[in-house]
Amino acid sequence: MTDAARDSIESGSALDEVTPSLIALVLEHLEHGRVDEIRAVTADLSPAGMAHLLEQVAPDSRNQLVGILKGHLDPETLIELDDEVREEVLENLGPKDIAAAAQELDTDDAAEIISVLPEIERREVLSELPAADRAVIEETLAYPEHSAGRLMQRELVAVPDTWTVGQVIDHCRDATDLPDDVYDLFVIDAERRLRGSVALGRMLRTKRPVPVVDIMDPDIPSIPVTADQEQVAHIFRDQNLVSCPVVDNERRLLGVIMVDDVVDVIDEEAEDDLARMGGVSGIDIHEPAARTTRSRFGWLFVNLGTAFLASSVIGRFEDELQKVVALAVLMPIVASMGGNAGTQTVTVAVRALAMGELTTANALRFVLKEIIVGGANGFMFALIVGAVTWLWFHDPRIALTIGAAMVINLVAAALAGTLIPLGLQWLRVDPAVSSTVFLTTVTDVVGFLAFLGLAAVFLL
Amino acid sequence: MTDAARDSIESGSALDEVTPSLIALVLEHLEHGRVDEIRAVTADLSPAGMAHLLEQVAPDSRNQLVGILKGHLDPETLIELDDEVREEVLENLGPKDIAAAAQELDTDDAAEIISVLPEIERREVLSELPAADRAVIEETLAYPEHSAGRLMQRELVAVPDTWTVGQVIDHCRDATDLPDDVYDLFVIDAERRLRGSVALGRMLRTKRPVPVVDIMDPDIPSIPVTADQEQVAHIFRDQNLVSCPVVDNERRLLGVIMVDDVVDVIDEEAEDDLARMGGVSGIDIHEPAARTTRSRFGWLFVNLGTAFLASSVIGRFEDELQKVVALAVLMPIVASMGGNAGTQTVTVAVRALAMGELTTANALRFVLKEIIVGGANGFMFALIVGAVTWLWFHDPRIALTIGAAMVINLVAAALAGTLIPLGLQWLRVDPAVSSTVFLTTVTDVVGFLAFLGLAAVFLL
Repeated sequence: MTDAARDSIESGSALDEVTPSLIALVLEHLEHGRVDEIRAVTADLSPAGMAHLLEQVAPDSRNQLVGILKGHLDPETLIELDDEVREEVLENLGPKDIAAAAQELDTDDAAEIISVLPEIERREVLSELPAADRAVIEETLAYPEHSAGRLMQRELVAVPDTWTVGQVIDHCRDATDLPDDVYDLFVIDAERRLRGSVALGRMLRTKRPVPVVDIMDPDIPSIPVTADQEQVAHIFRDQNLVSCPVVDNERRLLGVIMVDDVVDVIDEEAEDDLARMGGVSGIDIHEPAARTTRSRFGWLFVNLGTAFLASSVIGRFEDELQKVVALAVLMPIVASMGGNAGTQTVTVAVRALAMGELTTANALRFVLKEIIVGGANGFMFALIVGAVTWLWFHDPRIALTIGAAMVINLVAAALAGTLIPLGLQWLRVDPAVSSTVFLTTVTDVVGFLAFLGLAAVFLL
Repeated sequence: MTDAARDSIESGSALDEVTPSLIALVLEHLEHGRVDEIRAVTADLSPAGMAHLLEQVAPDSRNQLVGILKGHLDPETLIELDDEVREEVLENLGPKDIAAAAQELDTDDAAEIISVLPEIERREVLSELPAADRAVIEETLAYPEHSAGRLMQRELVAVPDTWTVGQVIDHCRDATDLPDDVYDLFVIDAERRLRGSVALGRMLRTKRPVPVVDIMDPDIPSIPVTADQEQVAHIFRDQNLVSCPVVDNERRLLGVIMVDDVVDVIDEEAEDDLARMGGVSGIDIHEPAARTTRSRFGWLFVNLGTAFLASSVIGRFEDELQKVVALAVLMPIVASMGGNAGTQTVTVAVRALAMGELTTANALRFVLKEIIVGGANGFMFALIVGAVTWLWFHDPRIALTIGAAMVINLVAAALAGTLIPLGLQWLRVDPAVSSTVFLTTVTDVVGFLAFLGLAAVFLL
């Protein structure tokens, strides 16, 4: 690789910018109180790089660093920070600093930062802002969290439907406050209702006297300001959009959502799905231990209920367990295989539901397929487990019992793994949150009941 | 909601376009062989909507639909289809149809479609293409899968560094084959080396005689053609890019990657992480049952090994189990709680590793925090489980034993949940794939060993 190529990689992502040796260097300077050196080595970091650096160091060092870099922080850094770390950094900045940062940011980003502040500080920051900015940010904050209204920025270029291409170009040349990341111009009527959009490339290629309405695309998608961010992501994905106008219920143009904000939403939703399936409230590596302990306790407590339920099933077979101790040795196998097979099915179902791939139109086909898969794997594992059990305990009856229980539990896992997420979705409960608890309840109970129950009938 | 707002939602995402009633209508027309009606009701669907419709219906109906819609399918539909369904649809199209579609698509999309064809058909399709298109697509296919070279499109606007704004605008006006979704122009030197970029908005606002080098941004990021798509996603995320030039190792401009392709990559990688954690090779709802059965068998087989290992631990305590049958009843609780607590930790670790949030700089802090969380929750659950056990079996010694085992196993789960993913990452094995198997091995073995071992020492 040549130096040019390496440079371009290194200037690419925050991971490449903030190397372990840079972190070590910063921490060393910090230890010796070398303020200027710290400012020098971090001066060229991108906002994402600076955010990554602040996330990587311990909270104490982070607070010191923020104190040192205060006046030199690019406001975009605040946007790139992880939620937990951002709260901490904001505590270290005064209302004046936060207000100054907010004024440099797009409205959606400024509102996001101000929204996480405690009530009192939020009011202080807002009072530091010029009246116009304050009004816009308060308006943004009035929309529900995770709505299109929160995601959109007000910075956009809207031109009247009476203009020509020449007038638009002259307007752009005269305006000094035009955002740099404009890709589409929006055409509006006298009531500010959205009539269409013109891609900048199109504008550039068209002669000056042509009216903009002649070259605008009138069939552009628009997003209602109350739409949920998940739906916004679906629209961007399905239509491969770079930006999309946001309208009120009279189709009046309110703002525009840019694709980079949608990328954040997509990351967030993927992370949420993963976190929920894993039984955590979020990817909380920056959260204090006490808070993490509390937030994870709830999920474990629910699982404890499931575990006791399974134990109570086992408790009904105390006599059998005492007579044939091999049952106690083998019984976790059936339950564990059911849990794993069911988790496979639930994972597929939850993601397919989230992406809209699993609907009423194909749900029945999906359930039937999973039963076939569960039955087929159940049969194969019955053979394997039966053979091992026979060799281990020299008793064909125990082998037959565990094999039969395996088939029953893997079919039960397929049924539970499909019907539980579908049922939760139908009840409008997020299937990612609670599917696995219900699933393991079913696979544990059915697993122990089938194995010990069959044993009680055939072995004793 | 007014009609306007509703319309704008309905024209938004594929989910809103393809309602259950539309699917039912299409299937009814299909049953009665009403070809014209099918073409009429699907004529206004976006490519994503058409793809969604084809994914939702049963394979038989899908093949019939493709036959009917063949000549009317927007080539973009092929891009939007799920991999499994796409293969099936391509089988129903001849090489001529596929070649015609490929010519209308951007190079990266055309290459993606052709890459999934079987070798013989691939050659047939390529031979149907004009020589220039064929050469470009073959060049794209020569780059490794999941590399920047595969993601980039060749369609871009590059202008010499000797031109003025006026020359560029005239060039754009004269060229008829300019792509519509251009957002940045690239400035190149005589050797086609990338010198910088100019946002279209900037171009529009600048007077004609100004040289492009005066308004170009020379510090733009660029991506080496060999970069992995995961790194491409990191760069787009961290720098909030809409498009990014791709260069060879002499920094010569080869193509451009657009953000909508990166959104697909982000979705794909999130899906992969989720799938791996759940023990499936992919979100396979469109895969035939036989193939799904085979692909899930492997993971279950590995888990069976774990389950037998756990059973062999239990087997060493047959005497104890026979004497105190309560042990058999209670033992799954300790193992199950350890597995769940460990899964919480692994979920956080795997995602934080994938996003680059967990690095050598903060790994030790993360491990220590998880041990504190595990110990604290272990202590609380020891109290709860001990109390319930005492009430159930009226034996304080069993209660003490299970409580102690709980603390031990939740600390073991924290250690295993952090060190296993970190170790796998260090060994350059994807932590998402195998962390949970190793984890449950640890939590099962430690869970049974601690509980039954302590019981053997203190109870008997």
